[in-house]
Amino acid sequence: MTTSTQQTHVPEPSTDVTMPAAAAQEASAPHSTEQLSDLGDRLRDATGGSYGPVRDLARATVPTEVMVRDASLTMAQAREWTNEAMRSLVRYGMAGSGFPKTVGGLDDVGRSCVDFEMTAHGDLSLTVKSGVHFGLYGGAVTALGNAWHHETFLTPNLALEQVGCYAMTEFGHGSDVASLETTHTYDAETDEIVVHSPTPSATKTYIGAAAQDAHVAAVYGQLVVGDESHGVHVVLVPLRDADGTPLPGVTLGDNGAKGGLAGVDNGTITFDQVRVPRSHLLDRYGGIDDEGRYVSDIDSDNKRFFTMLGTLVRGRICVAAGAATASRKALSIATRYALRRRQFSAPGHDGDVVLLDYLAHQRKLIPAIATAYAHRFAVNELVERLQELHEMPTKDQEAQRELETRAAGLKAVMTRFGNDTVQMCREACGGAGYMAENGLTVLRGDADVFATFEGDNTVLLQLVAKGLLSGYKEMWGDLDMRGMVQFAARAFGGQFVEATAARPLVERLRSAAARKGEDETLLDRGWHLAMFADRERHVLETLATRLRRRADDQDSFEAFNSAQDHVLLAARTHMDRIVLEAFVAGIEACEDEEVRGLLEQLCTLHALTSIDADSGWFQAHNRMSAGRAKAVVTQINNLCTELAPHALELVEGMGIPEAWLNSQMLLEETAATWTPGVDG
Amino acid sequence: MTTSTQQTHVPEPSTDVTMPAAAAQEASAPHSTEQLSDLGDRLRDATGGSYGPVRDLARATVPTEVMVRDASLTMAQAREWTNEAMRSLVRYGMAGSGFPKTVGGLDDVGRSCVDFEMTAHGDLSLTVKSGVHFGLYGGAVTALGNAWHHETFLTPNLALEQVGCYAMTEFGHGSDVASLETTHTYDAETDEIVVHSPTPSATKTYIGAAAQDAHVAAVYGQLVVGDESHGVHVVLVPLRDADGTPLPGVTLGDNGAKGGLAGVDNGTITFDQVRVPRSHLLDRYGGIDDEGRYVSDIDSDNKRFFTMLGTLVRGRICVAAGAATASRKALSIATRYALRRRQFSAPGHDGDVVLLDYLAHQRKLIPAIATAYAHRFAVNELVERLQELHEMPTKDQEAQRELETRAAGLKAVMTRFGNDTVQMCREACGGAGYMAENGLTVLRGDADVFATFEGDNTVLLQLVAKGLLSGYKEMWGDLDMRGMVQFAARAFGGQFVEATAARPLVERLRSAAARKGEDETLLDRGWHLAMFADRERHVLETLATRLRRRADDQDSFEAFNSAQDHVLLAARTHMDRIVLEAFVAGIEACEDEEVRGLLEQLCTLHALTSIDADSGWFQAHNRMSAGRAKAVVTQINNLCTELAPHALELVEGMGIPEAWLNSQMLLEETAATWTPGVDG
Repeated sequence: MTTSTQQTHVPEPSTDVTMPAAAAQEASAPHSTEQLSDLGDRLRDATGGSYGPVRDLARATVPTEVMVRDASLTMAQAREWTNEAMRSLVRYGMAGSGFPKTVGGLDDVGRSCVDFEMTAHGDLSLTVKSGVHFGLYGGAVTALGNAWHHETFLTPNLALEQVGCYAMTEFGHGSDVASLETTHTYDAETDEIVVHSPTPSATKTYIGAAAQDAHVAAVYGQLVVGDESHGVHVVLVPLRDADGTPLPGVTLGDNGAKGGLAGVDNGTITFDQVRVPRSHLLDRYGGIDDEGRYVSDIDSDNKRFFTMLGTLVRGRICVAAGAATASRKALSIATRYALRRRQFSAPGHDGDVVLLDYLAHQRKLIPAIATAYAHRFAVNELVERLQELHEMPTKDQEAQRELETRAAGLKAVMTRFGNDTVQMCREACGGAGYMAENGLTVLRGDADVFATFEGDNTVLLQLVAKGLLSGYKEMWGDLDMRGMVQFAARAFGGQFVEATAARPLVERLRSAAARKGEDETLLDRGWHLAMFADRERHVLETLATRLRRRADDQDSFEAFNSAQDHVLLAARTHMDRIVLEAFVAGIEACEDEEVRGLLEQLCTLHALTSIDADSGWFQAHNRMSAGRAKAVVTQINNLCTELAPHALELVEGMGIPEAWLNSQMLLEETAATWTPGVDG
Repeated sequence: MTTSTQQTHVPEPSTDVTMPAAAAQEASAPHSTEQLSDLGDRLRDATGGSYGPVRDLARATVPTEVMVRDASLTMAQAREWTNEAMRSLVRYGMAGSGFPKTVGGLDDVGRSCVDFEMTAHGDLSLTVKSGVHFGLYGGAVTALGNAWHHETFLTPNLALEQVGCYAMTEFGHGSDVASLETTHTYDAETDEIVVHSPTPSATKTYIGAAAQDAHVAAVYGQLVVGDESHGVHVVLVPLRDADGTPLPGVTLGDNGAKGGLAGVDNGTITFDQVRVPRSHLLDRYGGIDDEGRYVSDIDSDNKRFFTMLGTLVRGRICVAAGAATASRKALSIATRYALRRRQFSAPGHDGDVVLLDYLAHQRKLIPAIATAYAHRFAVNELVERLQELHEMPTKDQEAQRELETRAAGLKAVMTRFGNDTVQMCREACGGAGYMAENGLTVLRGDADVFATFEGDNTVLLQLVAKGLLSGYKEMWGDLDMRGMVQFAARAFGGQFVEATAARPLVERLRSAAARKGEDETLLDRGWHLAMFADRERHVLETLATRLRRRADDQDSFEAFNSAQDHVLLAARTHMDRIVLEAFVAGIEACEDEEVRGLLEQLCTLHALTSIDADSGWFQAHNRMSAGRAKAVVTQINNLCTELAPHALELVEGMGIPEAWLNSQMLLEETAATWTPGVDG
């Protein structure tokens, strides 16, 4: 394995990064004592995106003890630790970035995602608990409330004087938010809203902070004014008094032990005719005027519902970023371990064969590292796009929907990859990987939640497919199947592609590849891009044809359901192209030639791994010959062998300081001077 | 979904099942109040194998409270619960079946695996702790010791008066058992053996029961007599006195929290010149005579080492069975949930669309159920073969090695499937799946250990490939690569296949298929069998050719390593064929026509799913046309839709009483009268 020049990483001073007092004070004497190779440092710079300096600042200033939790804490201790750590997040400026400037925020929703992501480098209970409090609850108040709500509720939120929770999911209703049963009934006589859980299945459940800490909840329910229901709206409902005692009419429960996230107090809430002032309705898109009439600028209940949910796209972006971070963290742990662990001795290689020298071990870790880099660029693009749309003076509805679709799809793809990758890494560390103190099993249990919260992945992928079939134009409407496939019918007269920064480059590379023979093109980026685009296009076209053929069926559920595997494939292949193109655009922006060379190799490995995984599809659809299919496997092996000597730099480039990995087996002392227990 | 006649399941009385007193007494009034459909009951009968009555007995007699543990127990409470539950296992006759009859056992090693499997239907901490105590420790004493060892150590073992542990793994040595550093040095002057840990990396670690309970350890170490080392042998070393105080020279540590198995006290052991009498050496294959000389019937250290390890094949069979059980349990939970949970309403299907009606959900669960059935038959065959070889008056070395290879391979394949399946099921249950009380996350964390204990899966698959390349003849020797590929070179003049009971049937089906055209054969068992056998044969032949070509390389590590992905593929495709043939043989033995029809459908689904997963390989190697590849996918969808109405019967047939699933969300009361927490 190569060694590189070691240097202490200190971030470049950056004038455009707003630092809170505490952080600014300490930035001059960074907590980080991270030793980085020169190449690892440059890889990190090249992949930081426009929020790179924000990330560097967090790495340099936030002490390890804020980020990592002792794996042996009990649930009660973990909850307490998490609450304390949230105070530190505020202190280090990693909270409230997305809040309006009027209440001390930065009005930077992109940065708020980066705050979430940086927190996710450490402990995920802290990440989720703060994400619920600042991001979901605070985000709902910010996006759906008015200036009074901001002033009244965000100020104590940022000061952690009033803990917020986000009460959407009900026992009987997870994915189907439109069917929530909780009611918000306006009582004109008292000018109050009555919040009520009419059935056991209306009970709010899995609500982070409900079991123990939350003082106030953003409650999703059906708004009823007069005799008319106007669909789902959000009302802020106090849950506990300052001492933590539940308020009258509020029944709170504890979900108890979970698959992970020991530090998050998930719980249940039921409301028995709880009354709050009319002002507690978050009324940006629909409210009640002084005459007690329902008023909204958006006529359609459905459109209003999706517009309100759409403002919360940030939650899914955060989850995507969090899952991508979990993958990078697991890969960092397993790769560092594989670079030091010896399994067998090999004749002629006395003592110097480590786990990562085995081809099979390379095949586990290196392609996953390549995909983790791909996801890094895709997250950067997504976060930057979020802020770009946020800053636009006039809202672009179609661009907003395209962003929501992309967020949904990347959330599904990255959480799938995250769960698979963390588990693979745990197994790649053998028995040591199973010990909690080595960091992988806690990460696995914690990150697992991402697969099903902020949207079930299967439901999200269907949403992506629906967006593609309707060209985003009508995806949030009461669109029937006939309407849904109309756009696709038109779109594939020409080819339907979003306008992205990478588009001209992508087109140029693809055209160049088309002029080459099969032998030359295996490593050619244009060929990869063409394969991904062609797969997506074919899958979507045939899906549209298939659905159109059944569009007149009496049983539209049956018609759509019988093609559900095709629907999911369309979504997945679309997201695969989006991710690859983000990687290509990210490389194009890199000016460091040596780093660029490494990124090109990673991108090729990522692309070929995806092509190989769909080798059956590509051959069955005459997109790849048998010989080419075999050559792809050979090339994957070659790339793994070529990249393995750079493994340490590659994980350094992923940007997680070794101390934040919180893995006992990686401490030098462990191997050298390790001593066993003390009770003998 | 269909409903079927419900009936309380009471096992057939069976005269050949030996019942301990407590169990026999209670069998007349079974604890089980399980309601089974008629078809589910018959499926269970048809898949029970020769140990079916033993399984029925456990289901009918062992109370649920012995099998299931409250998920919210702390680590200390879980450890205490596990120790108590072990006493119940003895009481219900689920311990010591493999012990010699002289000490109260049944001399039935097959049944001891079934005891492990039945325990695994409940809590896996109990399974592993009892597996270590009775199976690994007790099994080592049984297989490697003499009559004196049996009498002296197994009697208090079965009475739980002396807790045993199995001290093989060292901090520096997991997979490479031959390189263990612990020394057993014979001191002729005192006629004692000195057990010592010479370095920190010689510390025994991850040892179940070492942290808290074990009184005695079966310690693996290098036996040194005079100046000569004779390789790894096992010595029984007392660790604690009756009060639990560690003995002089013994240092014990606690591995603390793990990825699961909260009830197992894994720990570390170091020995500082600990002396035990010479008699504590388990000397069946190598010992020290009264003159202080090393004596053994086996000349080669290597051969003796593998013969000793080979006797412990049962551990891997138990792990395979345990992982297969975890898969069935997770599938039982997720399928039962999918049959009642509603996600969205569908036009024209008011209220009656449940999760399992969605094609995508069927595609998750039904093919996995099919494979779980395949594994059920493969485990039955393996366990029965173990006992068959055990009962043979003359040992058949080649058959023993074939069994060891199969056990290693099935362990790898079933633990991989187990981890993937449990996680898939957890996600298929959404947020509810993440709550510990619903049984999936605890199962996930517990079963995960199977992937890396009793052999790392990658190492085990290499062992399978090595067995295939050498035709089992020399697999345990100092075989170099040239020797290893020699057999394969010969074998493929003809075709190398093991003699199994299913062989004539398999050959007949394959020949029949060869005479049919492509259109007719998609559902034809002979075609499936031919595809699996052909894939294995081609992969192994080309591997042998490839290795032969490099057999003279200076660097044999490099030569072998560069083909490691090919090596693993050879092992996996071999195991795929073994599993399919076990399924076919299992169906052949079923006399119930209706059940047989269902099993045939499951077998087809299992086979097509495997073919589809390797669709790229089959096409690239001209074994399948593009049209056929697409038709396979269509057929998988059709089979899922056809089998979904039988989902309840299929999970009943898997044999896990609903109460043992320990899943709150499956209790009828939960959905109907569920009330939230009480602190409001």
